[in-house]
Amino acid sequence: MPIYQAPTRDTRFVINEVLKLESYGNLPGFEAATPDLVDTVVDEFGKFVSEVLAPLNAVGDREGCTRNADGSVTTPTGFKAAFDEFRAAGWGTLSAPEEFGGQGLPHVLGFVAQEFIATANQGFGMYPGLTDGAISAIIAKGSPQQKAKYLPKMVSHEWLGTMNLTEPQCGTDLGLIRTRAVPNIDGSYAITGTKIFISAGEHDLTENIIHLVLAKTPGAPESSKGISLFIVPKVLVNDDGSLGARNAVSCGSLEHKMGIHGNATCVMNYDGAAGWLVGEENKGLAAMFIMMNAARLGVGMQGLGQAEVAYQNAVKYAHERRQGRALTGPAEPAEKADTLFVHPDVRRMLMDAKAFTEGMRALCLWGALQVDLTHKAASEEDRARADLLISLLTPVIKGYGTDKGFETCVNMQQVFGGHGYIEEWGMSQFVRDARITQIYEGANGIQAMDLVGRKLGQGGGAAVQAFFALVDGECAAAKSKPELADLAERTERANGELKAATMWLMQNGIANPNNAGAGAHHYMHIMGIVALGLMWLRMGEVAVAALAAGSGDKAFYEAKLVTGCYFGERFTPDAGSLRHKIESGAASMMALPVEAFATA
Amino acid sequence: MPIYQAPTRDTRFVINEVLKLESYGNLPGFEAATPDLVDTVVDEFGKFVSEVLAPLNAVGDREGCTRNADGSVTTPTGFKAAFDEFRAAGWGTLSAPEEFGGQGLPHVLGFVAQEFIATANQGFGMYPGLTDGAISAIIAKGSPQQKAKYLPKMVSHEWLGTMNLTEPQCGTDLGLIRTRAVPNIDGSYAITGTKIFISAGEHDLTENIIHLVLAKTPGAPESSKGISLFIVPKVLVNDDGSLGARNAVSCGSLEHKMGIHGNATCVMNYDGAAGWLVGEENKGLAAMFIMMNAARLGVGMQGLGQAEVAYQNAVKYAHERRQGRALTGPAEPAEKADTLFVHPDVRRMLMDAKAFTEGMRALCLWGALQVDLTHKAASEEDRARADLLISLLTPVIKGYGTDKGFETCVNMQQVFGGHGYIEEWGMSQFVRDARITQIYEGANGIQAMDLVGRKLGQGGGAAVQAFFALVDGECAAAKSKPELADLAERTERANGELKAATMWLMQNGIANPNNAGAGAHHYMHIMGIVALGLMWLRMGEVAVAALAAGSGDKAFYEAKLVTGCYFGERFTPDAGSLRHKIESGAASMMALPVEAFATA
Repeated sequence: MPIYQAPTRDTRFVINEVLKLESYGNLPGFEAATPDLVDTVVDEFGKFVSEVLAPLNAVGDREGCTRNADGSVTTPTGFKAAFDEFRAAGWGTLSAPEEFGGQGLPHVLGFVAQEFIATANQGFGMYPGLTDGAISAIIAKGSPQQKAKYLPKMVSHEWLGTMNLTEPQCGTDLGLIRTRAVPNIDGSYAITGTKIFISAGEHDLTENIIHLVLAKTPGAPESSKGISLFIVPKVLVNDDGSLGARNAVSCGSLEHKMGIHGNATCVMNYDGAAGWLVGEENKGLAAMFIMMNAARLGVGMQGLGQAEVAYQNAVKYAHERRQGRALTGPAEPAEKADTLFVHPDVRRMLMDAKAFTEGMRALCLWGALQVDLTHKAASEEDRARADLLISLLTPVIKGYGTDKGFETCVNMQQVFGGHGYIEEWGMSQFVRDARITQIYEGANGIQAMDLVGRKLGQGGGAAVQAFFALVDGECAAAKSKPELADLAERTERANGELKAATMWLMQNGIANPNNAGAGAHHYMHIMGIVALGLMWLRMGEVAVAALAAGSGDKAFYEAKLVTGCYFGERFTPDAGSLRHKIESGAASMMALPVEAFATA
Repeated sequence: MPIYQAPTRDTRFVINEVLKLESYGNLPGFEAATPDLVDTVVDEFGKFVSEVLAPLNAVGDREGCTRNADGSVTTPTGFKAAFDEFRAAGWGTLSAPEEFGGQGLPHVLGFVAQEFIATANQGFGMYPGLTDGAISAIIAKGSPQQKAKYLPKMVSHEWLGTMNLTEPQCGTDLGLIRTRAVPNIDGSYAITGTKIFISAGEHDLTENIIHLVLAKTPGAPESSKGISLFIVPKVLVNDDGSLGARNAVSCGSLEHKMGIHGNATCVMNYDGAAGWLVGEENKGLAAMFIMMNAARLGVGMQGLGQAEVAYQNAVKYAHERRQGRALTGPAEPAEKADTLFVHPDVRRMLMDAKAFTEGMRALCLWGALQVDLTHKAASEEDRARADLLISLLTPVIKGYGTDKGFETCVNMQQVFGGHGYIEEWGMSQFVRDARITQIYEGANGIQAMDLVGRKLGQGGGAAVQAFFALVDGECAAAKSKPELADLAERTERANGELKAATMWLMQNGIANPNNAGAGAHHYMHIMGIVALGLMWLRMGEVAVAALAAGSGDKAFYEAKLVTGCYFGERFTPDAGSLRHKIESGAASMMALPVEAFATA
């Protein structure tokens, strides 16, 4: 059976040593996040996910969810009990606002919890996971009454939330939505339509589910400028907070998916259901983006998570499986064969995974800190800068993070040889589950266009300029340290490729927007490489200092330096070839008439 | 439901126009392969696979195979009837030797059949597919009596064959085999042991199955130098060819796999089963490689096949699905949205797929021609040269072809957005089926080591030198043509990277073999890029000539030129970054102690 041990040591390293969370102790909520508390949260939640959620991962995959004749949905064996335990311990409330019953801790800690839960059991994690986005949208756009009515029970996870965007005819293009919202005399709306791909749309974990639903009011503009957001509870909530009648919303069927079988992906039917407008009519898109941005970072962490658990299992297999001999001669002559670790091509895949997961963890938690600083940093300037950086890097964390996360899962499956293809070994599930992360919450092509078409130009390019400067500054500083010089030079070169690609896109995207679209995916990947290079430099700085100070955990810091060096050697060269591809532009990509795309 | 139309136009283009098969009419077997016959085979078999096999692909995935209480295995609904039709039409015998009832046509045609069948229904195709390798081994190493007894019925597919190599404790490292072969007094051997991952090990398609089994005789050396190959029929065959008693071999269970559910992947138990030695004792490895090399080319074609069918379905979806607007303004203002074709990132994925599948088809059929020429070319020199080239490129066709084939399936699934993740749409099956091609018949890391560790050095580097010269010559010739100059220069540059990487590996692999191992995977990919570049140049040459001659099929040839140009722009730049990675060597890859590979 697959294993999972939460990466507690590495997580503490990132939070306490790399991000130096304690140094932000002057900011609201951070004062409570002492290293002691961080250690407790990391260790205790790590224990919970490893012992309770991880063993249910294969169960969820095998059993899936069941839609009963009455439209109710039963989650896999053990999910309800695990959820009750999760809720009782308050693990979902770490970084929720104290005003609504949360613990008000930094998002950094909330993201740690998100990573661990998404790694141990992605299908399970999606039940509470989507609630965070729904909470964010209500906090940002809801009325005081809506906040009072829904948020405390959503924060406590007594109720869970969902996001209802997609319809059969529209996913990316939300302007095509057909779900209708007709005003009732009491101020509510009657919601009618069909939504598909609704994660956690119906289940038996909570007594109520708060659906956030995009719909169009009568006479609304045709485009995405005519979308409104509604709260549609599964069970109506009386003014005193008690539950009333069942609303006219139901699960029509469950999708048969490649993976995340443990999560109920529902077709939701709204049949004149009572809904309440969140914010203003026709302003639903902005509210949706609040949900989406939170969700996108969460999906990036799912990419990291599946890569991490796949890596851990591949490492275990590589320790146990003996096959062949080292190219340099038998490593363990007394055994019939050496372990897989002696083979460079196996090492290559394991080192790729190690360099990605550790770098990505640092990037995600750094990103979480920017989310915190966006709201809490002392100066307006610091808040604006954090907002710029996390806006820029959200599509990179989601798009690059999940592309590489999936690739890592595939490589870790490869380490198992034929056994990797057999379901009982669990590697197939990691690959199948990770695959969705590249698709949902905005397919990665959409992330790339968000980055190139929207984020690059924001504020006259202020975000990307800030990012360039950040990377250049840290590369320059690191180059003087012999242990980091090679990585710093390679990261600086990759950053140079990123600048050149940016310049090319700016110049050629204006003449022909297709030139920007044609390079967007590659551009997102260069930025991912540079961002991870920056993280490896920072981790390297900490490691150099710790080793110089004679740390007792020498092996840990030495491994950081070796892995950072490997990252420089094996990840950064792609920046150059990606830039070359971008500079080819859209001409040959878009030249063929559509009839040419047929082969028979 | 997914579609598949055999790519008959493109196949005829490669055979008749690029390979110019007719020009080999002086060679035995080729005289019959006139363009008319080629057209008939391509069209008729294309029709058969599209109409009969493709509709059963999803059935096989959904139903899988069933092991019954008596150990017999039932294939999915419709497989038996389709197989009977396949056999009756003689589609499996195209390039089998006439001596044993085959049609004696060039392997080029046999490979076309392999591609089409592996594309329409990979799980089905593996039943007859593995028989070809078994036939090759018996032809090469079997006694005249064995040939007479088994080959005619195997060639006619009255009986099918299998390859029994893997055991629970050994896949790659066949020196660890435990299956025993003890001589009986009648000259046969008693075979005892357990084999796993045996494709088509048991089924209801034929009345007999001829297993080729690796086992060790008493006192055999411990290493792979102590392996022998045995024929172990499921049902014993009397001297008059009639069937006798059931042999002591049975299917113990079926594996639960990520994909290829339509094929029965069996645990096979040998319990003193009667077996007959093929060739000499302890020389089984050489016989096995005959099977394996045939199978490896077949697996490369499976990678192509799954990419092709995934591409066709993505094209269909891109035609039908309307979402968003072109970046350059609405392409079809009268519609509510444009088709997916307007979006550069969708085009990128489709063009990547088109450039790969068409290039790979040319490479595979060119490879098949080399197999033919190895045996049939007029001069010893030509035969030796063909043998060198196909030996060199077999691991590339298998390893690069399946890595890119899988990647293509994943990208084509991405074109579908969320629908790609839903099993009913069929894209998940292509991804899941394609995944095995990177693993079986020697995982792709083994292919890379075969290329770098064995093929590069053969004959003092004669093969790779021949390949360099071939590419350089054709690049030089193509550079003078304006339509091909860019592709020629880019391919030449990629070939330059390949030469530099070769030199680096030669020099540094001697000092430390791990340096060769650390770069092998990347090296295989550079060679794949160069090989496909060569194919695109050849296709380009034909297209330029056809257009100059005023061909009536202008759109077809123009698309070839555009796609070749795209290949140059978007595939060849990777050669440079891969070479940089190779030159990093093994130092940081192998530096960490194995204990460092743990994260908790």
